[in-house]
Amino acid sequence: MAQLSDLDIANKATLQPISDIAEKAGIDANALEQYGHYKAKIDINQIKRREQKGKVVLVTAMSPTPAGEGKSTVTVGLSDALNHLKHNVMVALREPALGPTFGIKGGATGGGYAQVLPMEDINLHFNGDFHAITTANNALSAFIDNHIHQGNQLNIDQRRIEWKRVLDMNDRALRNVVVGLGGPTQGVPREDGFNITVASEIMAILCLARGIKDLKEKISKITIGYTTDKKPVTVADLKVEGALAMILKDAIKPNLVQTIEGTPALVHGGPFANIAHGCNSILATETARDLADIVVTEAGFGSDLGAEKFINIKAREAGFEPSAVVVVATIRAIKMHGGVAKDNLKEENVAALNDGIVNLERHVDNVRKYGLEPVVALNAFVHDTDKEIEFVKNWANTHNVKLALTEVWEKGGQGGVELANEVLDVIQQPQSFKHLYDLQTPLEEKIETIVKTIYGGSKVTFSSKAEKQLQQFKANGWNHFPICMAKTQYSFTDDANKLGAPEDFEITIRELEAKTGAGFIVALTGSIMTMPGLPKEPAALNMDVTDDGKAVGLF
Amino acid sequence: MAQLSDLDIANKATLQPISDIAEKAGIDANALEQYGHYKAKIDINQIKRREQKGKVVLVTAMSPTPAGEGKSTVTVGLSDALNHLKHNVMVALREPALGPTFGIKGGATGGGYAQVLPMEDINLHFNGDFHAITTANNALSAFIDNHIHQGNQLNIDQRRIEWKRVLDMNDRALRNVVVGLGGPTQGVPREDGFNITVASEIMAILCLARGIKDLKEKISKITIGYTTDKKPVTVADLKVEGALAMILKDAIKPNLVQTIEGTPALVHGGPFANIAHGCNSILATETARDLADIVVTEAGFGSDLGAEKFINIKAREAGFEPSAVVVVATIRAIKMHGGVAKDNLKEENVAALNDGIVNLERHVDNVRKYGLEPVVALNAFVHDTDKEIEFVKNWANTHNVKLALTEVWEKGGQGGVELANEVLDVIQQPQSFKHLYDLQTPLEEKIETIVKTIYGGSKVTFSSKAEKQLQQFKANGWNHFPICMAKTQYSFTDDANKLGAPEDFEITIRELEAKTGAGFIVALTGSIMTMPGLPKEPAALNMDVTDDGKAVGLF
Repeated sequence: MAQLSDLDIANKATLQPISDIAEKAGIDANALEQYGHYKAKIDINQIKRREQKGKVVLVTAMSPTPAGEGKSTVTVGLSDALNHLKHNVMVALREPALGPTFGIKGGATGGGYAQVLPMEDINLHFNGDFHAITTANNALSAFIDNHIHQGNQLNIDQRRIEWKRVLDMNDRALRNVVVGLGGPTQGVPREDGFNITVASEIMAILCLARGIKDLKEKISKITIGYTTDKKPVTVADLKVEGALAMILKDAIKPNLVQTIEGTPALVHGGPFANIAHGCNSILATETARDLADIVVTEAGFGSDLGAEKFINIKAREAGFEPSAVVVVATIRAIKMHGGVAKDNLKEENVAALNDGIVNLERHVDNVRKYGLEPVVALNAFVHDTDKEIEFVKNWANTHNVKLALTEVWEKGGQGGVELANEVLDVIQQPQSFKHLYDLQTPLEEKIETIVKTIYGGSKVTFSSKAEKQLQQFKANGWNHFPICMAKTQYSFTDDANKLGAPEDFEITIRELEAKTGAGFIVALTGSIMTMPGLPKEPAALNMDVTDDGKAVGLF
Repeated sequence: MAQLSDLDIANKATLQPISDIAEKAGIDANALEQYGHYKAKIDINQIKRREQKGKVVLVTAMSPTPAGEGKSTVTVGLSDALNHLKHNVMVALREPALGPTFGIKGGATGGGYAQVLPMEDINLHFNGDFHAITTANNALSAFIDNHIHQGNQLNIDQRRIEWKRVLDMNDRALRNVVVGLGGPTQGVPREDGFNITVASEIMAILCLARGIKDLKEKISKITIGYTTDKKPVTVADLKVEGALAMILKDAIKPNLVQTIEGTPALVHGGPFANIAHGCNSILATETARDLADIVVTEAGFGSDLGAEKFINIKAREAGFEPSAVVVVATIRAIKMHGGVAKDNLKEENVAALNDGIVNLERHVDNVRKYGLEPVVALNAFVHDTDKEIEFVKNWANTHNVKLALTEVWEKGGQGGVELANEVLDVIQQPQSFKHLYDLQTPLEEKIETIVKTIYGGSKVTFSSKAEKQLQQFKANGWNHFPICMAKTQYSFTDDANKLGAPEDFEITIRELEAKTGAGFIVALTGSIMTMPGLPKEPAALNMDVTDDGKAVGLF
């Protein structure tokens, strides 16, 4: 029998009306704003706050292969398993970007029998959140260019505008553009560029805001560029924070959907995990904690990226502590870190596992550095052999690491019961959670702490540009911000090819970016892509829609 | 007492749940896809087709002042009046663009006590239709640039790409841009530009499509540019019509809202009335005709623009005949056409009315040229004097023109009863409807017919570029398309300053554009703005959102 695609499986699932899911989740009918039959937005003002909030389980991963290790799938499957075990659980995920859908990448709604549904809608426009963010971002660009065109009262230096336009599209031709051409009535010519929408600071802000008021305050603090005498210019100077927040008035409401097994899911926000913090919205996570005893959530890439930012940026801003951390690992990723080439990952290779396990080991150690006890979810793939699985289990035993084989892709929640039980065990235990650094520490020391403690590096080098920026940022009063590292997800180093668990390496900070609205300083290592391109044969070529409106060829 | 703003009035209105409005309109619960409590999309596959379809009442206008003459307001008010008189009526309107909201322009949802609601949502993202159109448009741009970057198998001449990017934004700096800068990995440099989304051919296609299948066929026929040997390149050549139609799978569903008095309203699509055909979607109009006995709808600008295109493009494509045409006139517009300066329009001036009435007269005559009997709606403004109103009424009497004073802005449906009765009178009468030209007539003759018959001009001059294009278009097999004139809305001529009813003038066709997907040839006269700019003090400066999420300062 031919293997079913994720969309096939999704199409075979019987969805429950979203009003039933809401009722199950304890969401009042008047808090529910339906978007079609199976999606809704939640009016969070109508959600009862509870004193004993739900516990947060964070799902992270080892350093992934380019295909990804199924973090979303395990997150969904774990929540279904907990649901299965009669726990009051919700899952809180990021929204996928639309642009990459047309390129190579599959959706970001899980896979197999561990998906959030309706996957075709969640992967396309969903409830319009990303479009609203695109609009707010580009309205700000229009306001900036209009301000300069109309006399430039604020004295903005058009060579020092940091704010870029965005589209939710993979479109390399927009990375570097010149705008304002065509003469004096068509604006002022300047260099600009487009990022993909998930890279917008507005996206990061939406995900870190505690409500409309906080959203507006954070937007007002965005630094859009500098004056000719190098003073920061903010959105507040342009007086458009009200208009921009208004554009986002619905996007800020968390979206309710369901897993394939009917577990309530909040899917909301999706900032890049490289130049932004890579976590779903605080509002969604906190709303879930008011509704459920256990909230399963994830953060982009490995413990070195998303999880580090989840703890030091998101959880700190929200004021909660995670109660458990799951580290997703796969046999194929461990083999890759053991030096096996991409094309040979399907072949049994225990020796390579032995070489590559150090990568997983460092991720496990990283979690312990926050005072948390990790659970490794070994996410089963069809080519894994018994010997290989046995090797990883033995490693876990000898290293005193909790590990569960998960088969949620194939079996749904039933395939995650072992993992769920391990997680339940951990969240009963007392933990001694701590952040990695104090906010008042100087910026360069915060960066060094991350590099040495989490990456395992020995030294941080700052480019002369970054050195200069450190001084400027401190002079601007920006020392207290947490750090948002921008680094390849494939390696603990800033070189994607250095696999395993390298030691004694240097990280070079090429440049800093001040996201004073979102409230973090981005430290850029290597070259970070903020606008992807399409491949020679885009996935779009296989996409279609039936005469009665059903999506075809979407994953 | 201070006068209430449109948003104030809207906020004071008590909205009915959209499910109640749907029930009233005869829409099955399973055809209703709610978007929040007061908006919905309609699954048209679930609507029963009826043999005796509803009659169509078109609302057009005389040549407007820059502030507009209240065409949407009268359209809404007329439908409320018919509802009031116990007729089974629906109103079908265009969706407003988001971009201009931040500039000067008010919303496009009517005004005073004749509005469609919730106006703040309809004027912002509504149900995501324009965002989907933006996405489809820009995905096509990305596919084109990617095709060229990846080897350009189709041999597309990057100097002859007609397809532009779009944003739903007033952003003059994007009118002329250079994309693809930054070296060999960043695409191929070329000139490009952004239009506002309503100017996208995708918007026109969505509004002319009869369903998903037709949508996809029309998209496949879009000419995106030309090869180096000047052959047209279509979307079908790129093989992405399926993906683009998929992006639009929800946008194609008509949106249900309500008027302030609870009349069901379908608000769907909004192509520019200058370079596109300026009418709401055929699907919405036809769905309304399956649900109601009378459908009130409007088209952009005057009888020379929107109404001409409504009849010769939209109604022809849809295969229906309008049963009545309302021409909205105002005392201030008539005075303006009589030579009164903008700042003096509030002063009584019967002599100017006498001079300016020729403009209205020509619009009335234009409607009769289609074999239809017009009803003039004299839309009351607070500064109109009794003498002025008396003058216009006398003119109507002596010229045998049906006229009704409408006070729907102030009084809602009650203020439109006289108009409704005149309209009801007309739709009972037999009419002898005919189109203006036959599709097989040569392109230049079709243009001449419009200019001489509708505008009152004496001659059409084609630029040498347009002459060349006429030959090329015929060689490409595009002679059979109807014409979509792009002309200023302020004058029957191509010069916005020539008011009244000029005679014996020439129209110059500067350039043609082949919209082979939408199925019309645009004939450009004068300079047509397809990407507006923001004013020195944008309306955005006064916009805000309350802590509990309510829009403020929106009109």
